[in-house]
Amino acid sequence: MSLVSRDPILLTPGPLTTSLSTKTAMLRDWGSWDASFNAITAEVRKQLLDIANAHENHVCVPMQGSGTFSIEAAVNTLLPRDGHMLVLINGAYGKRMAKLVQMMGRKVSVFETPEDIPTTAADVERLLSGDRSITHVGLIHCETSTGILNPLAEIADIVARHRRSLIIDAMSSFGALAVDAAKVPFDALIAASGKCIEGPPGMGFVLVRKSVLEKAAGNSTSLSLDLYDQWSYMEKTTQWRFTPPTHIVAAFHQALMQFVAEGGQPARLARYQKNYEALMTGMDELGLKSFLDPKIQAPIIVTIHAPDSGNYEFKRFYNQVRDKGFVLYPGKLTQAETFRVGCIGAIGADEMRQAVHAIADALREMGITTKGTREKRLASELAVNTA
Amino acid sequence: MSLVSRDPILLTPGPLTTSLSTKTAMLRDWGSWDASFNAITAEVRKQLLDIANAHENHVCVPMQGSGTFSIEAAVNTLLPRDGHMLVLINGAYGKRMAKLVQMMGRKVSVFETPEDIPTTAADVERLLSGDRSITHVGLIHCETSTGILNPLAEIADIVARHRRSLIIDAMSSFGALAVDAAKVPFDALIAASGKCIEGPPGMGFVLVRKSVLEKAAGNSTSLSLDLYDQWSYMEKTTQWRFTPPTHIVAAFHQALMQFVAEGGQPARLARYQKNYEALMTGMDELGLKSFLDPKIQAPIIVTIHAPDSGNYEFKRFYNQVRDKGFVLYPGKLTQAETFRVGCIGAIGADEMRQAVHAIADALREMGITTKGTREKRLASELAVNTA
Repeated sequence: MSLVSRDPILLTPGPLTTSLSTKTAMLRDWGSWDASFNAITAEVRKQLLDIANAHENHVCVPMQGSGTFSIEAAVNTLLPRDGHMLVLINGAYGKRMAKLVQMMGRKVSVFETPEDIPTTAADVERLLSGDRSITHVGLIHCETSTGILNPLAEIADIVARHRRSLIIDAMSSFGALAVDAAKVPFDALIAASGKCIEGPPGMGFVLVRKSVLEKAAGNSTSLSLDLYDQWSYMEKTTQWRFTPPTHIVAAFHQALMQFVAEGGQPARLARYQKNYEALMTGMDELGLKSFLDPKIQAPIIVTIHAPDSGNYEFKRFYNQVRDKGFVLYPGKLTQAETFRVGCIGAIGADEMRQAVHAIADALREMGITTKGTREKRLASELAVNTA
Repeated sequence: MSLVSRDPILLTPGPLTTSLSTKTAMLRDWGSWDASFNAITAEVRKQLLDIANAHENHVCVPMQGSGTFSIEAAVNTLLPRDGHMLVLINGAYGKRMAKLVQMMGRKVSVFETPEDIPTTAADVERLLSGDRSITHVGLIHCETSTGILNPLAEIADIVARHRRSLIIDAMSSFGALAVDAAKVPFDALIAASGKCIEGPPGMGFVLVRKSVLEKAAGNSTSLSLDLYDQWSYMEKTTQWRFTPPTHIVAAFHQALMQFVAEGGQPARLARYQKNYEALMTGMDELGLKSFLDPKIQAPIIVTIHAPDSGNYEFKRFYNQVRDKGFVLYPGKLTQAETFRVGCIGAIGADEMRQAVHAIADALREMGITTKGTREKRLASELAVNTA
């Protein structure tokens, strides 16, 4: 690392780069019993329902811990002890959801497609028609393993027509990709503070259908992760049931106000789309290819094939790029050498362009020839030859 | 509230007042995959073992969420499916521990004493002799409901002699009261970031006997709260298994460095003891009495009997004192009207003395006669009479 330790820009799927105003919201200690803090909690819950247009039928229940804690809370509370959950898998987060259902001792079936193939509505139609014992369906909206986008609206329609319950892991999509609860039927949608709302990590939340949650008392085998209990206590007292991460809640609130000020979900998506385009233009210049077909690629996190060179080694590449001020993310595929670049966080296309330059410089320093350097060399040879 | 919104001082059992340097450690975004962040995690784990002199036989496993999440993780991971846990109760946190064992479907027995009576070693001796099926004992070191201190060392000895496993909720005592793992045998001791180490809330940790944890794979019915999995992943990768609360970890690390700089546990206890004495001197001046016998009172959180006056109402009292810059905590007893005052956090005896003055002023404004005002009145009447 260079001696000048400037904060690097995080091109990761979260924790990500937050704004300074979000971070400075943590410079205050709040009493968890205090009305002013509980007003912040109430405002956060309202703003999250706003984003999904979900005030009509849903409530928002925040939960301490990472996003996975909120997913486990939703499943443990909404899936009855004798329920049967089908989890649709095309990556590590789908596998994780299936694993937590299995660990809590409830019945789980899985449907797995390769990591570059979305689950289709037709798949779900066939699966639900074929097994009437399935009560719940678990879907990963945008699978962070690769960045693949699954067709949420179409699958939600099928699940609703079959009168099953849909639980959506929207961890890395919420706030960036539109989800309108008035049009897309779901019983639970889960995300976390440290993703596309650009808050610090430390809490998750569940947008949950009120009529379903009301009937979920006594399902949970975990006290900490009992979403019903968390909700009913908060409704009664305005307070969190157990100690809330007060600084994180305050910063998340600040991030939500900035989200609204920027123009909400459409503006957030437009910025991420530009980040994505700046990244892909740069990768194309370098001759690096994305793992996914652009048609199923969300502009959130992109998996890039490593350069085809014996000089490439991820750890060294990561460190070189980090020293230039940008933190990349390792790939998560077993069959191909890849790295990942997040397009999310409090950054714009300029930062992404700079990241591309840093990647190009790092590769050159590693002695890796990219398309750009080849073209420059050819152009200069051509210039010499025609001189 | 006054127009000038100075940050109030929190006289609460956590979240509490943290130092500015602890809070400013949150002004940086860390990548969770990054070596510099994982070095912080490693340092925090080491420092926590230092405090309990526990390097010989224990490891430290941090866990996302509030302290209760860490307690549930310890129980779910260490108590086998066919285990039987005895929980020693004299307040809300003992009840909470028993409830989470019961919810996860394992066998639990309870032994309950009144809220002002500690469990004794003789009680535990009798209970363990009487029921050989008990495999684990759960103990609350300092019960935050009242502030009562249970005799940890004596009980730990008895549990060890009976070769049962001891799980200690040391949430509100760790860092302030000495626990030496070389002298006090335990399998798990649990606390959290936002207590006597004076960090922000958002993570807990378990000091757990390594030989016991190594055999605990497959016990947990919760993926998120699987302490074995959390530990083995961290050992293998240096990283947290799921997204860590990066800002909280960094601030907790800063708080730990300040803890060491202050002089560690003895210095921390000495400061809290002075805070406690300043509080009790003040309460005595006002004629307000503590709920507990001083012999069983930890200098951490104190339960005070409300003044015996028809004018007293907690909510109004709380707001009046808050407007003067001090946040109190409600009582948690059903049989007596009380309020609680925390002696912990980044405050000293001066702040506590100011809090006493604020309490006195608030009571006077509410038209409540205290011993102090009675004495002043008598003294001035006496002055008039002898004039």
